[in-house]
Amino acid sequence: MDRYEGVDALLDGYDGYLHVGNEDDEDTVYLSGFDAPDDFTFLRVDGRTVLLVSALEYGRAENEARADEVRRTGEFIDGDRRGDDEARADALAEFLDEYDAHDVAVPRGFSLFTADALRERGYGVETVADPVGEARAVKDDGEIDAIRRTQEANEEAMGSVRSVLEEAEVRDGGALYHDGEPLTADRIKTEIEVALVHQRCKLSDTIVAPGEGGADPHWRGEGTVRAGEPVVVDIFPRGDEGYFGDMTRTFVVGEPSEEVRAMYETTVEAQEAAFDALTEGAGVTGEEVHGAVCDVFEEAGYATTRDDATEGFIHSTGHGVGLEIHESPRLSEGGGELSAGNVVSVEPGLYVRGTGGVRVEDLVVVREDGYENLNDYPKSLVV
Amino acid sequence: MDRYEGVDALLDGYDGYLHVGNEDDEDTVYLSGFDAPDDFTFLRVDGRTVLLVSALEYGRAENEARADEVRRTGEFIDGDRRGDDEARADALAEFLDEYDAHDVAVPRGFSLFTADALRERGYGVETVADPVGEARAVKDDGEIDAIRRTQEANEEAMGSVRSVLEEAEVRDGGALYHDGEPLTADRIKTEIEVALVHQRCKLSDTIVAPGEGGADPHWRGEGTVRAGEPVVVDIFPRGDEGYFGDMTRTFVVGEPSEEVRAMYETTVEAQEAAFDALTEGAGVTGEEVHGAVCDVFEEAGYATTRDDATEGFIHSTGHGVGLEIHESPRLSEGGGELSAGNVVSVEPGLYVRGTGGVRVEDLVVVREDGYENLNDYPKSLVV
Repeated sequence: MDRYEGVDALLDGYDGYLHVGNEDDEDTVYLSGFDAPDDFTFLRVDGRTVLLVSALEYGRAENEARADEVRRTGEFIDGDRRGDDEARADALAEFLDEYDAHDVAVPRGFSLFTADALRERGYGVETVADPVGEARAVKDDGEIDAIRRTQEANEEAMGSVRSVLEEAEVRDGGALYHDGEPLTADRIKTEIEVALVHQRCKLSDTIVAPGEGGADPHWRGEGTVRAGEPVVVDIFPRGDEGYFGDMTRTFVVGEPSEEVRAMYETTVEAQEAAFDALTEGAGVTGEEVHGAVCDVFEEAGYATTRDDATEGFIHSTGHGVGLEIHESPRLSEGGGELSAGNVVSVEPGLYVRGTGGVRVEDLVVVREDGYENLNDYPKSLVV
Repeated sequence: MDRYEGVDALLDGYDGYLHVGNEDDEDTVYLSGFDAPDDFTFLRVDGRTVLLVSALEYGRAENEARADEVRRTGEFIDGDRRGDDEARADALAEFLDEYDAHDVAVPRGFSLFTADALRERGYGVETVADPVGEARAVKDDGEIDAIRRTQEANEEAMGSVRSVLEEAEVRDGGALYHDGEPLTADRIKTEIEVALVHQRCKLSDTIVAPGEGGADPHWRGEGTVRAGEPVVVDIFPRGDEGYFGDMTRTFVVGEPSEEVRAMYETTVEAQEAAFDALTEGAGVTGEEVHGAVCDVFEEAGYATTRDDATEGFIHSTGHGVGLEIHESPRLSEGGGELSAGNVVSVEPGLYVRGTGGVRVEDLVVVREDGYENLNDYPKSLVV
């Protein structure tokens, strides 16, 4: 799928698609192939991509951006009025005028001030529903390789967690100690972040959820890790090319209870069922993959999202991963057909109050006639 | 200054101030005292603060948010329509109706889709210019302490840079080596990030700019560090309470040239001149502080921003630091009166093509009758 197909398809009745954003907005980065800390303008018009950037960014945009043409704001604005929002609107209007873009489509989150200012100047500005999300969900080879590299760094970080757990000693009462200090979730997060920094990844929150609290899948985790309890470790760093990785493993130091062991084995089996469904490749629906997972859990006696449960399997099977950690498509009820090039997490888990959580998560690429798993880190509960 | 004074002052002619955002939007975090990954709604009406959040966030918002009242989206929306933007607009309209907020002010960047949807439903929605920025520029004691803690972590990281430079050995040709490897800017950035991770800071880009490339103050820096060359190290981490720190030092391993030594001494003298201006405390203007810096540079024969120079002192003297790394006020031409509680960087520097850059930067708190420097890390060029 071409990066601009979704945009161009929505332009019937409009002269062009106008988008203003900066490097913190993933659609801007995706559409323009450019990142800059201050807002810049993207215009898709007559099958061409034009950027409007500040003088400071012009040279870099010329070299790096995915654009047919790059213009400087200074061509349309008096230097003295640069900090003035009305003057910026004048400049934007003049820029649009030069491309005969008098009726433009914009994304739903487009700035109300800018829209009102353009409308006052006689331009038509209307929102369209997410023209970029569908294109972003289908990754090209370069994007897949970027995700693959982040996921490799992620596996290194997971390895360092396992090493710390292996080195820990169990003191009386079951608390783990490492280097003479209680082994806390925070201590493990630091280990993960140091490993990721060495791989030049940007960090986001990490989940290290030991013990009973892990029964809440959203809990970030804190406190000392204890022998015999499951620890959910979910790491989702961003690589230096901007693409995320995402993986989860669950560990128990020492002997897990029968209950936790059964939860873990069922979860791994449920993930295998998702993979079986994905061998169909493009065309299988997110709902079918999620359903295969629910079937396994329900057969083993656990409640699932299909029962609106609050314990058991209580979240979706997976989500797209790319420039954002959560993006299209979804592996959940109502999830539509998958396309070749989708990169999705497959992350079944079980959550039981008074016991804790278990979850395993890999990233896979959907292919025409199957799938590729981007992980090869082992799934082994007991440390 | 009260957190809502700027908002309330702008509400003449409006029923309330409406803001929709999430934890990635600093104004949202500042106004609500709450962070959540998904959008939630802030309404200021009749001197009261009301939040509208999802069921998932309701309990936490009740405990943590700076709000007089917290409502759940589910009170206004049918569960089946939750993913539907039109249904969300219906719910928002019904919520506003309950507070008789039919004509609302919103920030300039407010979502065009939501504004159009409210207008179609008969509500008045108009943008107002930055009602939050002025309040955010004046920090209370809790905010200042948060910045102080981040800056302490920053000084630890700077210390680790100096240690690595001290340990480095000079090989023939002047290249530095550390642990048998060439000592690169990337290697030093990793050292900084590891130090910051151990202090539970979130990382942002770091500048480690060795040699001639440092003549561009925006360059992030790369390549091997060499003896005799200046290295600009500018670190701006975010503490776990959300507040940034920001500091810069410049180092030379071995013997600097006369030119670099003179650049450095003049820069430290220029910073002292800024501090002298700041002893006046609240009421001094950002332009006066910047002017004091320019005076020192110009007397020493360097060009400044007052000459529109491209070499010499070519950026502003400083900026506010808080929930964002760059916020109000500005220490630059046109910079207005400072207020007690402003936290600003003071960062003169000199940039010479063919030579490189030097810069020193501390953070200071403006007080009624003076200022407090949040740094006590020494300024010493030669390692």
